[in-house]
Amino acid sequence: MANQELKDKLYRIVFGSETEAGKKFDVILIIAIILSIFIVMCDSLFRNHLWVMRSFVVLEYLLTIFFTAEYLVRLYCSPKPRAYAFSFFGIIDFLSILPMYLGIFLHGARYMLLLRSFRLIRIFRIFKLFSFLEEGHLLLKSIKDSLHKMIFFFLFIVIVVICLGTVMFIVENGVPGSQYTSIPTSIYWAVVTMTTVGYGDITPVTSIGRFFSTLVMLLGYTMMAVPPAIVTSEMVKNNRKQIRRVCPNCGKIGHDKDALFCKYCGSDLEPTEKTKASKDKTKKEEIESNNQ
Amino acid sequence: MANQELKDKLYRIVFGSETEAGKKFDVILIIAIILSIFIVMCDSLFRNHLWVMRSFVVLEYLLTIFFTAEYLVRLYCSPKPRAYAFSFFGIIDFLSILPMYLGIFLHGARYMLLLRSFRLIRIFRIFKLFSFLEEGHLLLKSIKDSLHKMIFFFLFIVIVVICLGTVMFIVENGVPGSQYTSIPTSIYWAVVTMTTVGYGDITPVTSIGRFFSTLVMLLGYTMMAVPPAIVTSEMVKNNRKQIRRVCPNCGKIGHDKDALFCKYCGSDLEPTEKTKASKDKTKKEEIESNNQ
Amino acid sequence: MANQELKDKLYRIVFGSETEAGKKFDVILIIAIILSIFIVMCDSLFRNHLWVMRSFVVLEYLLTIFFTAEYLVRLYCSPKPRAYAFSFFGIIDFLSILPMYLGIFLHGARYMLLLRSFRLIRIFRIFKLFSFLEEGHLLLKSIKDSLHKMIFFFLFIVIVVICLGTVMFIVENGVPGSQYTSIPTSIYWAVVTMTTVGYGDITPVTSIGRFFSTLVMLLGYTMMAVPPAIVTSEMVKNNRKQIRRVCPNCGKIGHDKDALFCKYCGSDLEPTEKTKASKDKTKKEEIESNNQ
Amino acid sequence: MANQELKDKLYRIVFGSETEAGKKFDVILIIAIILSIFIVMCDSLFRNHLWVMRSFVVLEYLLTIFFTAEYLVRLYCSPKPRAYAFSFFGIIDFLSILPMYLGIFLHGARYMLLLRSFRLIRIFRIFKLFSFLEEGHLLLKSIKDSLHKMIFFFLFIVIVVICLGTVMFIVENGVPGSQYTSIPTSIYWAVVTMTTVGYGDITPVTSIGRFFSTLVMLLGYTMMAVPPAIVTSEMVKNNRKQIRRVCPNCGKIGHDKDALFCKYCGSDLEPTEKTKASKDKTKKEEIESNNQ
Repeated sequence: MANQELKDKLYRIVFGSETEAGKKFDVILIIAIILSIFIVMCDSLFRNHLWVMRSFVVLEYLLTIFFTAEYLVRLYCSPKPRAYAFSFFGIIDFLSILPMYLGIFLHGARYMLLLRSFRLIRIFRIFKLFSFLEEGHLLLKSIKDSLHKMIFFFLFIVIVVICLGTVMFIVENGVPGSQYTSIPTSIYWAVVTMTTVGYGDITPVTSIGRFFSTLVMLLGYTMMAVPPAIVTSEMVKNNRKQIRRVCPNCGKIGHDKDALFCKYCGSDLEPTEKTKASKDKTKKEEIESNNQ
Repeated sequence: MANQELKDKLYRIVFGSETEAGKKFDVILIIAIILSIFIVMCDSLFRNHLWVMRSFVVLEYLLTIFFTAEYLVRLYCSPKPRAYAFSFFGIIDFLSILPMYLGIFLHGARYMLLLRSFRLIRIFRIFKLFSFLEEGHLLLKSIKDSLHKMIFFFLFIVIVVICLGTVMFIVENGVPGSQYTSIPTSIYWAVVTMTTVGYGDITPVTSIGRFFSTLVMLLGYTMMAVPPAIVTSEMVKNNRKQIRRVCPNCGKIGHDKDALFCKYCGSDLEPTEKTKASKDKTKKEEIESNNQ
Repeated sequence: MANQELKDKLYRIVFGSETEAGKKFDVILIIAIILSIFIVMCDSLFRNHLWVMRSFVVLEYLLTIFFTAEYLVRLYCSPKPRAYAFSFFGIIDFLSILPMYLGIFLHGARYMLLLRSFRLIRIFRIFKLFSFLEEGHLLLKSIKDSLHKMIFFFLFIVIVVICLGTVMFIVENGVPGSQYTSIPTSIYWAVVTMTTVGYGDITPVTSIGRFFSTLVMLLGYTMMAVPPAIVTSEMVKNNRKQIRRVCPNCGKIGHDKDALFCKYCGSDLEPTEKTKASKDKTKKEEIESNNQ
Repeated sequence: MANQELKDKLYRIVFGSETEAGKKFDVILIIAIILSIFIVMCDSLFRNHLWVMRSFVVLEYLLTIFFTAEYLVRLYCSPKPRAYAFSFFGIIDFLSILPMYLGIFLHGARYMLLLRSFRLIRIFRIFKLFSFLEEGHLLLKSIKDSLHKMIFFFLFIVIVVICLGTVMFIVENGVPGSQYTSIPTSIYWAVVTMTTVGYGDITPVTSIGRFFSTLVMLLGYTMMAVPPAIVTSEMVKNNRKQIRRVCPNCGKIGHDKDALFCKYCGSDLEPTEKTKASKDKTKKEEIESNNQ
């Protein structure tokens, strides 16, 4: 019984962020994560400062011990440990403590970096706080809603980019001083140009190549209009949805602000809606997101 | 009779994507296309690996045979073969199998690449699936609707770019170390700058040139606001149109797609509408677009 | 009398674009303008091909004669010649024929280029056709409406850019291999970065410089959200305005689609409005644009 | 009493911008600020022209005296001098006159630049004029409203950028000719790429590196859709809010700012609304923003 109570208490602290202790724990966790990232980033700078590296290694050990403890606590206090262990974050947590122990036996230090960088994703745990806020929630929702259009758009982009890359390869290949040595390189150039990144490591040298790349740029310029359009229109749509209300009779949501009768059951919507709107909003949105 | 049946069966498989077999065929086709693209891309990398090239050539032959067979089947089973043969995709299909046979007689291998890259457009056939979905459909519609504005905008951009290029040529030409050797080059620079691609292969060296190009950048920065605005406003308009229905009783508009009762007078909106919605949508939208 | 008739006839042809002859004239004019631009662009390429240059010079003369004739005709047939002569296009026309004659006396060939490039603006004359179309009209209107916000935004950008440039100068100046030689140069870099053009002709070399420029990029990335937002919101607003109607009683415009009574005089708006909407729209918009 | 009157008079001139004298003072102030910026910018160019530098120093002194006088006047005439002295602009004003006096004792000329550049922020004082206009006000409001989403978005970007930088470091590090020498450098590259700035000072050399950076570019291309979407949707929402009024008779909403009669029931909307609109707007919006 007491054991169960302890578990619940730990659960609220380690997994939850509602309690005071939970918030504190999250903050400590973030600091630890940022510190570990800082180390990863710096030990590639101070390769030749021995004593710095030593102190980093020590910090490294301490952090790993901390993260290991955290992992074990999570396993202990979670209602279904197996479910956690095989959840996305569970695997991340496991992978992010692994490298240190592997590092003792096999010295693949370089490969540890990537794994350690996963720790960052943990920060999202704390973002759960934000994501419940209207802003983050609505933002994610809009991106999710516009995913279909986006996929459609990117399949189109990929085709366009391959075609343009091939054309540019044919135009510029063989010209002395041309960097379009192969089609993949040309496609790489096409992407660099279409996305308006424009490194300039590969640039046309012939007049016709320059003329063609001008067209590619203008095309990319126009293309660039589409993704914002997609996400924006979704967001505007959601903003409009946001200001809808619940029918007191059938409980269905999605009535416009100026609606007088429920569009599902035809019953009268209470006129006192304005005052309650603020409280209900959060609830409603969850229903919405579940419905969709 | 049986012949006709066979034709219909083939038609459903080769052209359609509704049946199980049709879907399978489409997937195989995509794989074949991607494979052929992969080969085209790689044989410019492995120019000096003989055995790799050999195996590529073999794969090349097999794929060409497959695509040829497909082309003939399409010709055979399509209700009007002539119409297909001279349709956009018909010509693409023909051109994309041509190079291999041309390659046997005249070895213009380099020019085959471009033709082969057209095969990609075939993938859109499978996109037909998506394009019937609201997302793709609405996206294409919005782009189509905003085409007029876009053309207007680009004619403007072209003029601006030529003017700016000329000015920059006058400003920087003759300065030692200047890359603005000719007006076309300066216009190329203007496009690179206006579209915020910024290769950096041509950059101003004089103070006045830099000041002027600063203005060009800020202008391009503002200009860049227009294309998204055009497409977005169209998309928002379409989103709004989508949810536009008239109440048979009070004649008020602005009822959501899923509304069963009028939100103003509470009278019943025809309940059979939902079932018909999918069919009618395309029709309705065309009417709408004609009205405007 | 006949003189007046001739004048009117010429006016319809030279200034107007409604008649068949007027359209023809506009097309010829565009061709002439594009040809002259082509020459300007090319004679900087073929500097060392004498006979090409010679033929260009001849073409040059012919075009100048044509443009001169056009200018004189415009002066002759316009109802108020003085008004035309001092109008924007009148001055452009005058300046664009001037260089050739100046070229005879003083050989400032280089300075003729810029003047000649002004001829491009003439193309807008033909755009008048488009600009009456809903698209161009609405586009220009939206840009005009958002001008206030834009000016406000750019004053902000200028301040930000100067501040960031100064900071970067302090950070990077004096470091060996740094290109931040002066504050204007640093400001130039700040603009290049903020607008995401990123030439790469000036890049940070110190760690702190790179960190700072990272912040500048992210700032520019966010800033870039504002201009599209400004123009888009205006365009969405205009799209909404577009679908409004005229009161039969007071003749005021700006009633929403779902309005039953005039919001100015309170009189009933006719229900047959839908059928007439299409015809009236163009008229209404002109009224709107005049009102605003 | 007279003293108080003088104070009020000065206050209206120095702090306010409503009176004629106040406007004049603001304009003079702007000119002085721009002049001082001009000097700061130029004295890094004319390092070796002695007499230019001398004249600059003189101008410098005069400007500093002017700004000092202004600062003292502000302190004198402001109702609560202490409050002003410790306000944001008060500190700016103090800091911006400090360097000159410090320059007399310690010659840290380079560090004076930054402080002086703060003077620019003073220009915002005059922007107060604009910010009361609907445009600037609405723009700032929209940016403020979308701040939450933006913060959420940027925390996401930072994580993505660190992850991508680490991956790129692992991919490219150790390759001969690679510039990805450390993880911070790789993160710098990731930011340069994600924001589509694309300096090109650090570019991938391996095929896999190029393929990976292609993905990064396309990701950045999509990401770029989000900030405009956020700001735009807020702006559209505000535009809509702006035109939201309730009819006293039928209680329906959605009447334009310039409406005198309800468009649903034709009843009179209070005619005194127009005159009060300007005052109420700020209040109303605050209430609205609190409601949400």
